[in-house]
Amino acid sequence: MIDRVLSLLHSRQYVELRRLIADMHVADIAEVFSEIPDRESMLRLFRLLPKGVAAETFSYLEPDVQQNIIEAITDVELRSILDDMFLDDCVDLIEEMPANVVRRVLLNTPKENRALINQYLQYPDDSAGSLMTNEYVGLKRGLTAGQALSEIRRTGVDKETIETCFILSKDRRLEGEVLLREIVLADPDTPIEEIMEDYTLSVKTHDDREEVAMLFSKYDVMSIPVVDQENRLVGLITIDDAVDVIQEENTEDFEMMAGMTPSDETYLKTPVLTLAKHRIVWLLVLMFSAMVTGAMLEHFEAAISAIPLLVSFLPMLMDTGGNCGSQASTMIIRGMALDEIDLSDVFRVWWKEVRVALLCSVVLAIFNFLRILIQYRDLEVAAVVCCTLICTVLIAKSLGCLLPMLAKRVRLDPALMAAPMITTITDACSILVFFRFALSFLSARL
Amino acid sequence: MIDRVLSLLHSRQYVELRRLIADMHVADIAEVFSEIPDRESMLRLFRLLPKGVAAETFSYLEPDVQQNIIEAITDVELRSILDDMFLDDCVDLIEEMPANVVRRVLLNTPKENRALINQYLQYPDDSAGSLMTNEYVGLKRGLTAGQALSEIRRTGVDKETIETCFILSKDRRLEGEVLLREIVLADPDTPIEEIMEDYTLSVKTHDDREEVAMLFSKYDVMSIPVVDQENRLVGLITIDDAVDVIQEENTEDFEMMAGMTPSDETYLKTPVLTLAKHRIVWLLVLMFSAMVTGAMLEHFEAAISAIPLLVSFLPMLMDTGGNCGSQASTMIIRGMALDEIDLSDVFRVWWKEVRVALLCSVVLAIFNFLRILIQYRDLEVAAVVCCTLICTVLIAKSLGCLLPMLAKRVRLDPALMAAPMITTITDACSILVFFRFALSFLSARL
Repeated sequence: MIDRVLSLLHSRQYVELRRLIADMHVADIAEVFSEIPDRESMLRLFRLLPKGVAAETFSYLEPDVQQNIIEAITDVELRSILDDMFLDDCVDLIEEMPANVVRRVLLNTPKENRALINQYLQYPDDSAGSLMTNEYVGLKRGLTAGQALSEIRRTGVDKETIETCFILSKDRRLEGEVLLREIVLADPDTPIEEIMEDYTLSVKTHDDREEVAMLFSKYDVMSIPVVDQENRLVGLITIDDAVDVIQEENTEDFEMMAGMTPSDETYLKTPVLTLAKHRIVWLLVLMFSAMVTGAMLEHFEAAISAIPLLVSFLPMLMDTGGNCGSQASTMIIRGMALDEIDLSDVFRVWWKEVRVALLCSVVLAIFNFLRILIQYRDLEVAAVVCCTLICTVLIAKSLGCLLPMLAKRVRLDPALMAAPMITTITDACSILVFFRFALSFLSARL
Repeated sequence: MIDRVLSLLHSRQYVELRRLIADMHVADIAEVFSEIPDRESMLRLFRLLPKGVAAETFSYLEPDVQQNIIEAITDVELRSILDDMFLDDCVDLIEEMPANVVRRVLLNTPKENRALINQYLQYPDDSAGSLMTNEYVGLKRGLTAGQALSEIRRTGVDKETIETCFILSKDRRLEGEVLLREIVLADPDTPIEEIMEDYTLSVKTHDDREEVAMLFSKYDVMSIPVVDQENRLVGLITIDDAVDVIQEENTEDFEMMAGMTPSDETYLKTPVLTLAKHRIVWLLVLMFSAMVTGAMLEHFEAAISAIPLLVSFLPMLMDTGGNCGSQASTMIIRGMALDEIDLSDVFRVWWKEVRVALLCSVVLAIFNFLRILIQYRDLEVAAVVCCTLICTVLIAKSLGCLLPMLAKRVRLDPALMAAPMITTITDACSILVFFRFALSFLSARL
């Protein structure tokens, strides 16, 4: 489909192109724009879109395409787009654009929205406030369902959300909510108090947006109202924005857990230099830690020279320790992110990991023991390797569960204590343990 | 709050307890049940819930609590719960219960639902069919908005979703959809054709549920209709179920990427033996691969005995290779999961990683070079380590991006090619490269 649009655009078959676009979803139209290489063609396609579709498509565009189009269109066109955009999309747009584009956008925004936009821009990036929109319907107590429906008809046209309406006191305090479906299904004479929900889940403007997103999956709601310190309604957050937050936060965790600085941009759009910058810090930190581990090996040079075979077990011991540690830390980090594991569970978790470690390490040790006996017929070395293996797995699983919880306890992101960090630490431990055992079991041969 | 409920339940202060529960969300009430240790207390609390609340709470309970309650209540109570449950929740329940409980549930399900439930149970676990519900409103063409609203009032009470209604032909083929909000906001005389959306996103019953969930975040819709091969409407999927799928699929990726068999259960509920079973397979596979790597070291025993210092660089080289590889593979696996990276991008991605690898490895090499010169005053060893480092990082980043894409190409899950696997492979490469360089640069000293 995308290729078809591009070829029609290229050959300037506008009648056919308009017909094709009319059947496409705005999200798909937006995707086409990302594939267009030059600004002139973007502009040609954009001007082909019907007025309503243009504004909606615009909200779905990637920031770099948005910037290209804003810089190319006239003020009149820009104003018409901004008029049709929802306030939260407009705030998102402004947050992504460079200063000169922002100035032009604000100049062409209706005056009454400008103050609101400025207020919304104050909320920190990771707060509930940065996600909300003000496009909701507020209703007073004392209405009947029929009156509420008329009120919604009167004020709802411009509102992003009317499926949930909020019951407000005179000073805009949140008193409850009522679903459009309840209003529609109720007898028109039913007092709204009978169908409204008193128990209303709400969040504060400065609440963490990740925690807010988790509320959607816990309570299965479609929107959550945002209130200020005095419980006055200031906006609402809809589930589609929560889905985006969930995906972004998951991506952030994936990146941190692989030892990278998280970024908002998609991989293909991120410049090479930025990618390298996001990766080099952790690589350096971990490299220095691994150097320390390496330096420890120098202390055992005598043993290595006497029994060079010992060295050949290092990769297996280090990798197994790293893998065991990262299994445990991944489970714990994910469990905490999903609110399934609390800090108060620390002993239960640790005891569980200890038992898992014993089970796994014994199986691994048995395989190793047999293999070394068969291959080298060296009972002592087999004993050293197996004892080390069991200790290493125990240490790795313990660190893997305890360090992420410790990080959370001191208010760091638990995802910092994932595979790369745990691997580096357990490497040092496994090498120390290995040579301690070697020096005592094999002392006669050294 | 949970503690308060538990203590009231324990001291049997039922009046106070009823009042407290009346103000709680069903998801919170369900959470209380998970904290109750004995079946008798669960039952006491469950029987305190008002009738409507009981059924709704039941849908939110953990499977083990559901089973406990079903086994304790009478058939009359069970029937009343099942009557009030949405069909998709009922299907979920049956999927989780053991055979004897399923038999009792089906016996107490209304006859007309039993056939539907059996049909729904046929859909594979990971298909769109397993997520859908049949509780939607279907409308005919030719109605006005006012008539549509009356129709919704007549049929909508039991339906899970009425916010989006579907326009069906006489033989139930999907022709479009219309939002409740459009019906409400339109003039009652408006023909429904004017406010309906012809372009309707739909999925087939056997589509992969992960891909279906991605459609929600791409198109920002609240529900997606499910059709059969002949485009007849068979059900719909709502965004709250899609959110659960997104979280589950993310958890699955996290677990696979740390070398574990994914599981549906939460960490704290999974028995130790199951945890160990899910981890041991990959640990064994990776351990055997690392043994092969170790065996390679035996070929270089002469070099190790001559210059034992070489061994002390192994942890740094192996860890750095592993970290570089897992950074790249994480970015690519995540990018493919989010549909940001296509298989056709393979050369673009690889070329990007090569440049990132060069930038990162040169920085790392410079630090290492200086450190070795200062610490050991050994220019030859410094050269060997730095050349190895650059090659290792290049190999690691290349494998890190190519292997997940190769896995996808041969229809394996790309998450298999994550940190543990990449680390094991790059370990072997870095050791080979290291000793190749050592043998040529340092031949005079061996």
